[in-house]
Amino acid sequence: MSKSTNKRPVILTGDRTTGPLHLGHYAGSLKNRVLLQHTNQQFLLLVDTQALTDNAHDPAKVQRNVLEVAFDYLAVGIDPALTTICVQSALPALAELTILYMNFVTVARLERNPTIKTEIQLRGFERDVPAGFLCYPVSQAADITVFKATLVPVGEDQAPLIEQTNEIVRRLNRQIGHDLLPEAQAMIPTVGRIDGKAKMSKSQGNAVLLSASADEIRDAVRQMFTDPNHIRAADPGTVEGNVVFTYLDAFSEDPTAIEDLKTRYRHGGSGDIVVKRQLEEILQSLLAPIRERRARYAADPAYVMNVLRNGTAVAREITEATLKQVRDALGLFTLGSEQGLFPQAR
Amino acid sequence: MSKSTNKRPVILTGDRTTGPLHLGHYAGSLKNRVLLQHTNQQFLLLVDTQALTDNAHDPAKVQRNVLEVAFDYLAVGIDPALTTICVQSALPALAELTILYMNFVTVARLERNPTIKTEIQLRGFERDVPAGFLCYPVSQAADITVFKATLVPVGEDQAPLIEQTNEIVRRLNRQIGHDLLPEAQAMIPTVGRIDGKAKMSKSQGNAVLLSASADEIRDAVRQMFTDPNHIRAADPGTVEGNVVFTYLDAFSEDPTAIEDLKTRYRHGGSGDIVVKRQLEEILQSLLAPIRERRARYAADPAYVMNVLRNGTAVAREITEATLKQVRDALGLFTLGSEQGLFPQAR
Repeated sequence: MSKSTNKRPVILTGDRTTGPLHLGHYAGSLKNRVLLQHTNQQFLLLVDTQALTDNAHDPAKVQRNVLEVAFDYLAVGIDPALTTICVQSALPALAELTILYMNFVTVARLERNPTIKTEIQLRGFERDVPAGFLCYPVSQAADITVFKATLVPVGEDQAPLIEQTNEIVRRLNRQIGHDLLPEAQAMIPTVGRIDGKAKMSKSQGNAVLLSASADEIRDAVRQMFTDPNHIRAADPGTVEGNVVFTYLDAFSEDPTAIEDLKTRYRHGGSGDIVVKRQLEEILQSLLAPIRERRARYAADPAYVMNVLRNGTAVAREITEATLKQVRDALGLFTLGSEQGLFPQAR
Repeated sequence: MSKSTNKRPVILTGDRTTGPLHLGHYAGSLKNRVLLQHTNQQFLLLVDTQALTDNAHDPAKVQRNVLEVAFDYLAVGIDPALTTICVQSALPALAELTILYMNFVTVARLERNPTIKTEIQLRGFERDVPAGFLCYPVSQAADITVFKATLVPVGEDQAPLIEQTNEIVRRLNRQIGHDLLPEAQAMIPTVGRIDGKAKMSKSQGNAVLLSASADEIRDAVRQMFTDPNHIRAADPGTVEGNVVFTYLDAFSEDPTAIEDLKTRYRHGGSGDIVVKRQLEEILQSLLAPIRERRARYAADPAYVMNVLRNGTAVAREITEATLKQVRDALGLFTLGSEQGLFPQAR
């Protein structure tokens, strides 16, 4: 069962289970993951424990969305035979490694982390930052290193989190005296990222979910902001910051056609209705099969739970093995429980 | 195997495994634990994970002393049939609960904790406080609550740690809607505490270990500070702050005799040699059987390891059960792995 002997580069990625995924996730990561699973050993973590660091008041939301995100994964074409899909909270080695790594990171270092600083501001935490939230980069370091991942797809704004991980890796390897854990590299996506929350909330208040119905897609595109100064089709229009073109760039398979459309829009002579109709067509044909597959998985949660159990069992084996390596290399105490003296934990 | 149905009040106590125990531990806690194991359900935690929060650079010391402290426990009369002796790092539920509780405590609250403030100063951490060290009160809350302990023997200076635990308990119970976890009460010892590190280091540089030989005991008592102004036996002497009398108070079984000795010492006419001889006699007869038993356990580490494995197996069952209760009560995601789908973790 263990995939740890596999020699393909290891990717660790995943999503906080705070809501079903949307088009922004598809363009920014899911599409890429479907490709990468053929060339890499890919671990996809359903990040529920860490989602609690700013949702401790609403665990039900975090719990509910574990399956929702799993439906999204399977619907877009993540193949459990190629990608190990696993649940963070069902891997106790992650908590144990986090607690261990917390001794190798200072509070001041965490407070200086630019990503954390920004996120603390965004959430309005100020001095009421939960300890778990401040320490989530350490938990992320545990996620990455426990799978010995060398590639971590992240947005540019999250690169400091990878640097934090590598600082812990170097600190640990130095103490151990050899490179037990590999450093990881941030994979910054080349395609422009669509942040559903940030960009789309400005234009219409919500993002297009992968489960969106044909009507919801049509309405969402209709309500999208374009160029507010582009009143008549004959007027010249602006493409930059125009949400419809951002989406066309992200989702069209025909960049030449989009360049043509942009040229005409800029010069005047192309109405919003035309570009929106084009975008809607693209999104409808992209999402129709995803929606259909998603509905099938959602109708069979027992099957999906089994996918998660199997993936988590594989991940359990790998994460426990890495934890043991780290503990042994540091020379921590062991009861020699490998002799099977313990009752099965869970 | 599970003792969790037992109705006796539950005590959680333990020691950081950073060195073998000394007379200060005996007077301050061990002696009491030997009594309490008959009237309470007592869990004795060998605190190795938390010992790393300020010893991450020297895990070997922490590792080595797990067995040393266990030898001390057994030598003083802790009975594994009455007390559950277990190893912190072998209980993954503790790490998982800590990570969960960290979402219910703010960084600012931890930084305000008077015990932590003092300890950060003592260790000279200043801004280089390891995240693990700042969060150790949360890990302690996990230790206490996972056993549903209601009594925690601590020094007066550590009472704020119990308060921190109870804040987490109240926060959690409020969210859950019922009192799943009990609040804990600090048991402040009535006997004067001898802090080996603080008091004895001033007088002679080290404390009297429970394994001390007859010669070491004799030398230690000889070198003890008394009243520096008490030059001749005939001079009046001071009892307060006089280390020899502090020890006599702590270890004599005959308080009337000690009061007599104090009166004579105060009035003049009692030499340091006389009181030191009395103390040495008491300590020699206290430590001789402890030393002997300790040597027997130290000669049979396999037996002691087995004690720890058995105790930890009992604790494993209890800690996993509490973790599951907390997770279920909060409504966290579960894979339903109780159906035995997971390979044995360790």
